[in-house]
Order: sequence, then structure tokens, then C-alpha cells
Amino acid sequence: MAWSLTADMLPDLARGAAVLGTGGGGDPYVGRLLVREAMRESGPITILDPDDLADDALVIPTAQMGAPTVCFEKLPHGTEPVSALRALERRLGRRADATMPIECGGINSMIPLLVGARTGLPVVDADGMGRAFPELQMETFAVYGVPGSPMAVAGERGETVVIDTGTDNAAMEWHARGVTIRLGGVAHIAEYAMSGAQVQRTAVPRTLTLALTVGRAIREAREQHADPFDRLADVLADTLYGHLRVLFRGKITDVERRTEQGFARGRAAAASFDGEHGLEIQFQNENLVALVDGEMRCVVPDLICVLDAETAEPITTEHLRYGQRVVVIGISTPALMRTPAALATFGPAAFGLAHDFRPVELIA
Amino acid sequence: MAWSLTADMLPDLARGAAVLGTGGGGDPYVGRLLVREAMRESGPITILDPDDLADDALVIPTAQMGAPTVCFEKLPHGTEPVSALRALERRLGRRADATMPIECGGINSMIPLLVGARTGLPVVDADGMGRAFPELQMETFAVYGVPGSPMAVAGERGETVVIDTGTDNAAMEWHARGVTIRLGGVAHIAEYAMSGAQVQRTAVPRTLTLALTVGRAIREAREQHADPFDRLADVLADTLYGHLRVLFRGKITDVERRTEQGFARGRAAAASFDGEHGLEIQFQNENLVALVDGEMRCVVPDLICVLDAETAEPITTEHLRYGQRVVVIGISTPALMRTPAALATFGPAAFGLAHDFRPVELIA
Repeated sequence: MAWSLTADMLPDLARGAAVLGTGGGGDPYVGRLLVREAMRESGPITILDPDDLADDALVIPTAQMGAPTVCFEKLPHGTEPVSALRALERRLGRRADATMPIECGGINSMIPLLVGARTGLPVVDADGMGRAFPELQMETFAVYGVPGSPMAVAGERGETVVIDTGTDNAAMEWHARGVTIRLGGVAHIAEYAMSGAQVQRTAVPRTLTLALTVGRAIREAREQHADPFDRLADVLADTLYGHLRVLFRGKITDVERRTEQGFARGRAAAASFDGEHGLEIQFQNENLVALVDGEMRCVVPDLICVLDAETAEPITTEHLRYGQRVVVIGISTPALMRTPAALATFGPAAFGLAHDFRPVELIA
Repeated sequence: MAWSLTADMLPDLARGAAVLGTGGGGDPYVGRLLVREAMRESGPITILDPDDLADDALVIPTAQMGAPTVCFEKLPHGTEPVSALRALERRLGRRADATMPIECGGINSMIPLLVGARTGLPVVDADGMGRAFPELQMETFAVYGVPGSPMAVAGERGETVVIDTGTDNAAMEWHARGVTIRLGGVAHIAEYAMSGAQVQRTAVPRTLTLALTVGRAIREAREQHADPFDRLADVLADTLYGHLRVLFRGKITDVERRTEQGFARGRAAAASFDGEHGLEIQFQNENLVALVDGEMRCVVPDLICVLDAETAEPITTEHLRYGQRVVVIGISTPALMRTPAALATFGPAAFGLAHDFRPVELIA
């Protein structure tokens, strides 16, 4: 069923998207401001349930691309993702019937809303990562046979680049990353153009709703002085993301972060409050693996989220600082994201990690 | 008037194009083999005089792009420039009526012939550099108001990238260079799509004919045991490239060459046979300036060509070697290439050289 997203929902949505961003996906705060501004003129945005899409509807997902460390400093005008959409429509010779997120974590929950507000297009309540991932081939769309290309990249000065690598989504990522670097480290994209039937077959459903649910649960727990982590576990139990595990509680003791080849890579360490246990998280834009006392406790594609220990406010990798008091949680992902084909695309080995995937709910 | 280019003309054309390449433009030898192979199936290629083009004909120039040091090692399949042409046609929504060189020096005299042989399109006897230059904005087309974009880049695995930077040709170069680097250092392109009327207004005319004339003069001088440098000066006197000056005779004593940011940059030094004089040439893919005993004797856009002292065979920068006996000549360029607007685009300052442009015939 279609529903209306109003401006007052944006803070909850942004907070939930930051949780689902698992440390990456770009800070949704900036995206939220852009959407709020655009909604002043457009009014509410129509959100379509994926089941309501006509089989032959053309859906063109839109997103921001780049290292979060750069995106945080180099703010978009807000016109770029529409330029990318238009460039891809031109290449396809057809106008889009809707846009959609490629990832539900971080700023990319917001970019399609910005496109919706600016163009009047509805936004589909689904995405292709079910979280955030750093690379464009890491999409359930790709896992289940939708090619990412032709895709369009737009810069802040009206430049557009249309990349066609056939069915080779990794080559598409390689070239789009190169273009993004030459655009200064951040760009906006339109990719994985697909039919309504393909959305229903390949997308992770209702993840805008999920982000809203997560963000609202944290806010309400604060307002009611309840434990936000318990509350989060309760609301997730009714979703495709059924299991939440608290992996660690402690203080950040070290952060190592570098921007290389267009990515933010590094690791963070934390010590438990009693000083007896240690946590290490490795990230490439997003958190990839969490080790407690050297033992793996959660690994991609399951979600590893660093939250403020008091407020449960999510902390992205570029905001990790020495001394922060944090709770680190693991969240299970839907079955669609844990098939052998999915794990081959965005499981541990896809990131060069030696760990085998194990569902977080079976470890902790 | 249209004429037919036959396979037996290719060696002269390649030799002449190597002279006009002023050390760069890529070794035409490889291109010549590709064209000869394609002509086995296609037969002769139709060459159109620019004056014969209909005003509204669509001409799409095609070329190879990359550092000569890489192009020499990474050979094309031969299908790539056609892929680029087709991608740009698709973007423009119209089929080309002809292709054309963007530069008449080096391999890029050959690539449009390859496209002509493979597609049946005629090739226009004109180009946009009147020689070879290292960057895509360095075109008479650009100088006189034709935008280079939208342009298409094609890789060896069928990938295409369409870049649209509006009228900003330097931004087009920046992005195309980035894509070329990610393709491994060499790519094929279609750019500066224009009308027949625009060709007549902005192109350097009859430079395929010029290359043939130059290559033939050198060969005939050899066959007749005549001085090839005198013979070259004689035939050039009747063209838009009226003045040839011998700048230096000597032996190569040093070559410094590096591939950086997608270009071959460096310098070569030579000593006169009596050891009394020294030559220095600086290059970025192409030879940019020639200094004899520290005095500037020729500078871009005029041509600086290093030829074998005995045979007058042109030597490209990637083939410069210690001990080669060479004659270095300067050749004047047409008035179209020496206007203030032209010099701003591809004169000494455009390459970061401190020298003012002076016509070679007024220096030496």
C-alpha cells in the first residue's frame, strides 16, 4: 500500500538509516537537510510498497557515491541525483515511473527521497543492500541477475558520465569509482534500472519502513526513559531482521582511518568498562567484522552497529573518536542476503576477510 | 573531391603521420597493421574532401587515447573505436555520415581509417590538431567553438563510457583521461561530433593528403638517393605547412621518460657530431620545445620532429635511444593554428612553458 512520507518523519528515518548504515553509508544528517528543504516546496513524498508496482514499471534507483570522509565535507547542491536520473533516462529512451534506494543505510536512504521531492516521482519502499555496502556490485539486484549498467554518474557542475559494462557489475563499480574520484571524491548516481517485477524478485522489501521503525524505537525509548537496546530488539523481532545481539559495551580506545582509492578504510578498537575485554572492528566505509578478545562475534552481511551507550545514537565511522562510550550490536539480515550467491557477492570473502560467515544469532 | 585510399598507400601515410606526430600520437605502425587487416575485407576506403561535405552532414571523429608508452605495449583488437562511435551515435540519436581524425599525427591518422574500413563510412581529409597533441581540448574544433562532448570512450572488453561536460572541454579531457587510466592506459574515443559546416570552419584541411605527401617524399628521396630533408622542404613549400628548418644534427646523448597521470613526459638531449653544440627537447607525449645551446629554436604548436639522420625515418619519443644519429627539424603550422585563440589552447603557455610563441621560420 502506498503511504505518504512527511517532513516530521525525517529525523526518525535518518536515525534508523544511520543504524542500518553500520557505520557507513554517509551521514544521513546532510541528506535529511536536503530532503527537508526540497519537501518545503514539494510537500509529502509518495512511498510505494514494492508489491504495488506494475510488473513493467521502470524503477531507477538513485544514490550518492563516495568515501564518507569526503561526503561529509563536500556537500551536494541537491540537483546532482536528478541529473544522474535524467542522464540514465536519456540513455534508456524512457522516463522512470519511480525511484528507489540502492541501500537503506546512511545518506542513501535520503537521496531517493530528494529525487522524489524534486521530480514528483514516488519512491519504492525497498533497496538493494538491506543495509549499506561500500561497492556498487554489492547489491541483491546484482546477486539475483539484474545488471547495474548502463548507469549514470553526475557531478556538481552538471557533468554526467554514462557507463555501460554490460553484465559486469564489478567493472561498472571500477569505472564509477574512478569517475567519482576525479569528481573530487563524491558523486551521485542512477543505476540498476529495472522493472517492477525485478524489484519484487530481487530487492530487500520495506527497508524505508524498517529505518523509520528503528529510528522511532530509539526516540521513544529515550522519551520514556526505557532501555533503547531492549526496545530495538523488540521491534526488530517482528521484521525480517529478527535478531539483535549486544556484542560489546565499552570505550573507544583507538581509531585508524585513511581515505584510499576512494574508500574510507581502517579499524577501531574499544575496551570494556572493566578493562578486561577488547573489541576490534574493521571497516571499509561500513563495519565489516567485530572481534571480541580476538573471537569473531559478527561479520558481513550481518549488521555491526556502534551506538552511543546512553542514547543509542548511531556513530558512523567518520565520527568515531577516542573515549566515546559505546554499545556495539549485531543484527541478523534477511534470508535473501545470506544465500550462497549473496555471500559470494557481499560476504566476508568479498572483502578479503578470512572469516567464514556465521549468522550472528548462532554465535552470540 | 573524394578519392580512394588503397592498402598500398598505407606505408607512406604511416611514415608521414609519424613525422606529423612530432614524436607522439602513438606509433602508427600498429595502426597501419590494423587498417591493412580490415581493408582485406573492406577494400579501398573513401576519403572525402572537407569541401564536399553537406552542411548538415554528421561527422564523428574517432581516435585512440592514452600514453604512447602504454599504447605501444597494449594492442587494440580493432573493434574499440567502432564501439565508441556507436555509443556516441546512440547518445546523439543519429548515425554518423562520416568519421574524421582528431589529429593527423601518429596512430590517430589510422584509427578513423580502421573505422571507415569496418563500417563503410567515408573518412574526411582533415583533422583538429594539424599534428598531434596530448590532450583532448587541444583541438582547432574547440578553439573555434565546437564542444567536444558528449563523447564516448570504449575499452577492449566492450565497455563504453559516455561523458557529457557541456562546453567544458578541459573537464571532458580530465574525465576521459581518468577513464582511460582505469581501462589500463589506452582507450578509444569518439568526440567532437559536428556538422559538415563546422568541419569546414574549424578543421585543418587535407592533412591525410599532407601525411601521404610527406611519407611519399621521404620514400622517393631514399629510392632516388636524394637528400630527404631537402625533398621534404620542397614538398611542404606547396602546403599550408610552408617552412621547414633543420634545427640540429647530432647524436642522442640522454633520454629521460616517465609515464605519469596517463602521459609520457620527459626530455631528450643530443650533442652535435663535432661535440660543440647541445640540443634539448622537452615532451609531453609530443615534442613541445627545442632548445639549441639553451636558445629556443622551435616551440608548440610548430612541429618539432626527430628523424633518423640517414633515412629521415621519424622517431617517436618512446623509441628515442642513446646513440641514435638524428636530424631535428622544425615545420611551420597553418595560420589557423597560430591565432591568439589557438595559442591560448595549445601554445607554449598551455603546456606550462615559459617561452613565448615565435614562428619557426622567423627564428631559424
